Parts: sequence; C-alpha cells; structure tokens
Amino acid sequence: MKVLSGIQPTGRFHWGNYFGAIQQYIDLQHGNEAYYFIANLHALNTVRDPKALSGYTLDAALDLLALGLDPSKAILFVQSDVPEVSELCWLLMTGTPMSMLANCHAYKAKKEKGLPADVGLFTYPVLMAADILAYDAEIVPVGEDQIQHIEVCRDLAGSFNHHFGEVFVLPKARVLQATAKVPGLDGEKMSKSYNNTIEVFEPIGPARKKIMRIPTDSRPMEEPKPDYEGDNLYQLFSLFATEAQKAEMAAMYQKGGFGYGTVKKALADAAETYFAAARERREKLAADPAGVKEILRDGAARARKKAGEVLSRAKKACGVA
Amino acid sequence: MKVLSGIQPTGRFHWGNYFGAIQQYIDLQHGNEAYYFIANLHALNTVRDPKALSGYTLDAALDLLALGLDPSKAILFVQSDVPEVSELCWLLMTGTPMSMLANCHAYKAKKEKGLPADVGLFTYPVLMAADILAYDAEIVPVGEDQIQHIEVCRDLAGSFNHHFGEVFVLPKARVLQATAKVPGLDGEKMSKSYNNTIEVFEPIGPARKKIMRIPTDSRPMEEPKPDYEGDNLYQLFSLFATEAQKAEMAAMYQKGGFGYGTVKKALADAAETYFAAARERREKLAADPAGVKEILRDGAARARKKAGEVLSRAKKACGVA
Repeated sequence: MKVLSGIQPTGRFHWGNYFGAIQQYIDLQHGNEAYYFIANLHALNTVRDPKALSGYTLDAALDLLALGLDPSKAILFVQSDVPEVSELCWLLMTGTPMSMLANCHAYKAKKEKGLPADVGLFTYPVLMAADILAYDAEIVPVGEDQIQHIEVCRDLAGSFNHHFGEVFVLPKARVLQATAKVPGLDGEKMSKSYNNTIEVFEPIGPARKKIMRIPTDSRPMEEPKPDYEGDNLYQLFSLFATEAQKAEMAAMYQKGGFGYGTVKKALADAAETYFAAARERREKLAADPAGVKEILRDGAARARKKAGEVLSRAKKACGVA
Repeated sequence: MKVLSGIQPTGRFHWGNYFGAIQQYIDLQHGNEAYYFIANLHALNTVRDPKALSGYTLDAALDLLALGLDPSKAILFVQSDVPEVSELCWLLMTGTPMSMLANCHAYKAKKEKGLPADVGLFTYPVLMAADILAYDAEIVPVGEDQIQHIEVCRDLAGSFNHHFGEVFVLPKARVLQATAKVPGLDGEKMSKSYNNTIEVFEPIGPARKKIMRIPTDSRPMEEPKPDYEGDNLYQLFSLFATEAQKAEMAAMYQKGGFGYGTVKKALADAAETYFAAARERREKLAADPAGVKEILRDGAARARKKAGEVLSRAKKACGVA
C-alpha cells in the first residue's frame, strides 16, 4: 500500500510526538511504499521566523532519520521541494466550496474564539489534500483530530474525479492508536502549547532536571500506592520500560516504602537507554549536514517523479495542460 | 518599466475586450519589458469544461499574436506553464488576513446575492498577487474593477517585505483608458454575460448578420439625427473609422435622409477592413499550431527564469528554501 505521513516542523519533537505518531509512522515503512514529508509550507502558517523554520525543518529530518526512518525503504522529503503540490493545490481550490472549509475545526475554533485568521489556516485542508493526492496515497495515518481533513480530501478528490474523470486515488485515514497516554510534566497531555514537554533529543542534563522536578503527590513514602496506573511518573516510565521493569515498578508502588525520586531516576534512566542508539545516530547525522541534505534531495526527486505524474493527469483532465 | 498583463481565456475575445483592454496592452510592448499571460488558472474558476478551456487558451494566444503582440518584443506565456506562481501563491496565502479577501468585490458580490462561492473565487486575488509579484512587475494595466486587487497585491507584498525583508517590488496599477464606449448589439455595454457581443475574429458572414440585426429607432429616414453621438451604430462605427469617415458619417446623421441599413453596412465594412490584416495573420498562425506552441514554450521559459529568481528570494526569506 502507498502510505503518506506529514509532520510539521513547528519545533523540536517531544515524547508525545514520538509515541503518539512518529513511532507509528516509522513502523509503516515496512511492507509499504511510504512517503514522509516535513510539512514546512503548513508550518509557515505558525512559524513566521525564517531561521527557526529552516532550523526546525532540518532538525525534523535529523530526528526522523535518527529514530529509524530508513531512506532506502521510505521516501523522505521536504514539502516545499515539491512544487507540484502547490500547483495541485490551486487546481483543487477552484472546486472547493467555501462552506466545506468554513466547517473545518482548526479554522472554526479560531473564529469562534473571535481571533483573526489567515487565509493559510482557512485553506490548509486544501493544501493537505494536495499533499495526499499528489502521491496517489492510499493510507494516511492520522490522529483523531485530522480525520475531518481526510474527509475533505476524499470529497475534493471524489468531486474532481466525478467532474473531470478518474484522476485521483481516494485515500483512507488510518487512525493512530492512542495506546499510550503521554502525560506532560504537569500531568496534562504532553503538548508544546502547554509548555510541559520533554524533547526526544533534549540534552541529557536538562532532561533529567525536568524529570526530577515533576510534581508528585504528598502521600507518605511508606503508604502503598495501588493506583499506580493513574500516576504520571508510572505512565511515563511505562513508555520506556520492558515488561519486566514495569512489573517490578508496579510491585514497588503496590508495596509502598519508596520515594518518588526513585521513580524519577528510573524514568530518566529508562528514557536515556531507550533513545541512546537514536541519540548516537543523530549525532553522526548532525555532523554530516551535507549527507542529510543529499537524502532530502534524493527523496524530493523521487517524490517529484510521482507527483509530476499525478499533476500531469490532473492538469490534462481540467484543461490547463 | 516592467509591465504585466493577464487575460482570462473564458471565451473568444470580442470588440469590447479589444478596445477596452487588449489594444492598450499590446501598445505597452513598446518601450517596456512586457509580460503577457493567458490566465487559465483563473479561468478554471468559471470554465469547468477542459476542452473549452484548452481551446480558449490556444485561441487567446492566436488572437493576441494576430492582433500585434510581438513575441520578439514581449513575453507571451500561459499561466499554468509557470509553476513558480502557484508556489508563490501559497507563501502569500499564509500571510493574508481572511478579512482582506472577504472585502474583495467579486467574492463579496456573489455572497451578497446569496450564491455559493468556491475557494478559488475567494482566494483569486492572492493568485493574482503572485502573478504580479513573480515578475517584479512595476506597472499593471487594469480596468477600474481590478484596482482593488492591485491594492491587495501591494498590501500583501508590503507586509511580506516588512516581516521578511525586501523581497517584492510593489506594483502600480495603470488604469486603462475607457476612451471608447463599446456598446453591444443591444446598446448595453458589450459583455459576454449580456450575450450581445461580436467577436474580433468572428467569421465575416455571421458578424455581418449580427450587425444587420442591431435594433434601431423608428424615426423616419428623412429626419435629421443631430444626436448621433449617442447612437449605438455611430459609436461602433467610430471605433473602426478614420477621422474623415467619422466626419462624413456625422454629417449624414445631421442631414437625415438615410436608412440605418446604410450605417450598418458601413460599420460592417469598416470593421472588416480594420481587422483584415489581423485576420490574415490569424489564419497563418492557426495553420501552424506547433509554431504557436513554440512561442508559448519560449515565453514560459523566459517567464520561469524571472519567476524562479523571485520565488527563490521569497522562499529563502521565509525559511522554506
């Protein structure tokens, strides 16, 4: 199957991004024709600092490669390196009813709060449709909040096909498993907007400090804590721990007689071990920016080959070729 | 100066298009660096028949070349042959406030009539801004109704420059002279939407028939008609006649003692003579579609060279290069 995933370079990836999406994206490179793109044109809606945006874009590539994305298996590229997507975006714009975008939640939420919105936010589902349709993608793994946009994409593709002939493949959403809850430092969902994140490749010292400062409850050490599954620290620890480590930790909570500092230390150790190989790979990659750029260039060339075919079909079909 | 004009291939050009715009566009090729594009991506908003759209696009090229556009002086190309414009369009979308487009008259008029609008109509001023900015155009000759869109273009360019540095040249509108009123067959302004047009290259037989059927008033032949300047037929005749012919015709009206059939015949003859050389050129061009396509290909290559420079500046400035 053709699988496509995009990720916005709006900052450095954190544990929530990794366990909620990136890990599952990367798994899909096995047994699929996988396209991964760094969605810098989408990010431009929010990151209006050019240095930051180009930095995050390269960081995203480094992170993904370090975390196991294999360019010999999957096609990794930067969105803005494929002009065909912008071209396709306009073709789709001409057939998109205003009402369809007015109902999309990101724009709607902003409007309902009385905040001014940019046209880029409003039309972002059309660019996303172009991103998907440009590669004949069949499967698009997304979070719950993106299901609506896949529906928009299917609607636009269906209506284009109906009017101009069979040009686009209608994609299906594959909803990412929300297996693991990833709480932030404050117990809320980990999210950049809550400022409660630990980055995947955060330097070890600062990451440890953040962990050691996670607020905990004030029950006495000796008290047994059978409700461990609802505990922040335990949940985070579970993400990184083996089954045996988890069982051992659960037993400790149930028995009582430990300080949260012990759990924090175990968490920091487990996270460090978990990402140790990736961190090493990332350092090597970072030392060779030309090599990474070559990977992106090669990915873009492969992506453009496919997108060029699809765009050419679309242009012919609507009479602008 | 760098001058840019676009014309939508939404049908065959009529006398109103010619005297209201095309003639003035073509004049500007002298003494300027002139870019002329056939705006098929804009036309896609209204022409949803691919065969018609690609037909109108080639016809527009033939018409313009026949009417005197000189590809050795000016750059003639088809909008969709320059992907850089679609790319630039997205970059500009991200910084365009919704309110700016909601106030643009084409969209507003449709909305006020309670008609459903497409996103392509709503965002069309952004694509138009990209069309203009992509070539560092300084002068954009437009009709009164397009002045607002040039203002939008200036606003978007100014705000991009302010935020990201000096990237775009701010264009100026040059309002086309509405010297000659071009009435349609029914006396209303000549316009495709009133179905009262005569095409520039309409076959001579049908064009004559249309002219002979133009309704006239029922004053007796012998009655002097000193109000000739308000007469439909006289106005049309004036477009094509020499000063001497106009004076002669005016004298005839003032004196009376003629039938409107005489004026109609004189009009048909004058129009025929006026476009005779162009009609001949058009036949030669139409017999050599490969030659015309070569002109368009060459124009697109020159346009892309310039647009590529501007796009590259813009992408670097906002951090997506």
